[in-house]
Amino acid sequence: MNLPNALTYSHTLLNEVVGPGDTVVDATVGKGHDTIFLANLVGRTGRVIGFDIQQAALDATAQQLMLTGLGAQVDLHATGHEHVADYLAADESVTAAVFNLGYLPGGDKSVITHPATTLTAVEAILPHLPRGGRIILVVYAGHPGGQTERNAVVDFCQQLPQKTYQVLQYGFINQVHTPPFLLAIERR
Amino acid sequence: MNLPNALTYSHTLLNEVVGPGDTVVDATVGKGHDTIFLANLVGRTGRVIGFDIQQAALDATAQQLMLTGLGAQVDLHATGHEHVADYLAADESVTAAVFNLGYLPGGDKSVITHPATTLTAVEAILPHLPRGGRIILVVYAGHPGGQTERNAVVDFCQQLPQKTYQVLQYGFINQVHTPPFLLAIERR
Repeated sequence: MNLPNALTYSHTLLNEVVGPGDTVVDATVGKGHDTIFLANLVGRTGRVIGFDIQQAALDATAQQLMLTGLGAQVDLHATGHEHVADYLAADESVTAAVFNLGYLPGGDKSVITHPATTLTAVEAILPHLPRGGRIILVVYAGHPGGQTERNAVVDFCQQLPQKTYQVLQYGFINQVHTPPFLLAIERR
Repeated sequence: MNLPNALTYSHTLLNEVVGPGDTVVDATVGKGHDTIFLANLVGRTGRVIGFDIQQAALDATAQQLMLTGLGAQVDLHATGHEHVADYLAADESVTAAVFNLGYLPGGDKSVITHPATTLTAVEAILPHLPRGGRIILVVYAGHPGGQTERNAVVDFCQQLPQKTYQVLQYGFINQVHTPPFLLAIERR
C-alpha cells in the first residue's frame, strides 16, 4: 500500500460516488482511460457524456469502447466541454464529472485546455450535481500556460461557497517535474 | 460517503500501514485521540511512544488508556517530541508517527508547537521509517505563529528527496476559518 498519485486517487473518488444508472461527464476524453472506467461504473443503464476536440482521440476511444462492449452507455462529442450544457436536460442529475487539464500525453502538445473554457464547463455542471456529487480535476501544470490555468482553477475553487461545496486539494509536493495534482469539488 | 477532513483522513492513512506488533510515535498526545487509535492498531504486542509537555493532557490520556484496557502498550513521556531519539534504539523501526501541529483545542492556547522542535522530531524519526512507513502531520495554522510553522514544515517537506520519500498534501481549500490540512511523508 503506497500513497496513490493524483490520477489513481481520482478513480478512487469517482468509484466512491458513481454507480449503475448514473449520468456522468468525461470532460476530456483523450485516450479514453476515464471514459472506460466511468462506463464500467455506470453500466448499461447509465450514461457517460464525453467531450474532446481531437477527433483522433475520440476515434481511438470509440474503438476501445466497442472492443470492451461498453459503447452503448457512452456518447462521445467532438466539441469542447464548454458546450456541456447543450447536452444536459435542465433538471438532469450528474453524479460526477472528470477533467484532465493540460495536454493529452503523447498527443499534440499545442492542443491544451484553457482556463476560460474549463471554468465555463465546471460552472455549467455545478448546478447538476446532487448532494455528494463530485467534479474531479486532475491538473497538469508543467507545460507553457499550465501555471496560468492552474492558478485560475485554484482561485475559482477557493471562491466556491463552503456552505454548498467543499473543495479538496490532493497532491505530492516534493517532486521535481511538476506532477499533476487533484482538485475535487463535492456538493454538500 | 463524503470527502473526509484532514483529521479523519490521518486515521485512514495510519490504518493502512500500522498493524499488530508495530512501534509507532504519537508526537503530540493532547487528549489522546490518536494515542488510543494507535494503541488499538498495534495491539498488546506493539508499542506506542507518546509525547506531550502538558502533564494534565497526559494524565487525562493515561486515565482513558486505563479505562479502555490499552495502557500496557503505551509509554507516555512528559517531555517535548524533540527528544524522541532518546526513546528509540538506533535500529528500531517506527512504522508511523503522527503530529498535531498548533495548540491543543480546549487547552492552554499559549502552549503551541514550534517549527524548530517539530522539525527536530521529524528529522529524528525519518531514519527509523521502514519502506512504506509514514509520518503524518495535521497542521492547524489559524493561530498566531501558525503560518510561520506551516511554512517551515511545508518548506522542509518540499525539500525531502523524491527518490527516498513522497510527500502528500491533503486539505480543503475553500473554507474561511483555516481548517487543518494534512502532510504525509512516506518512505519509498
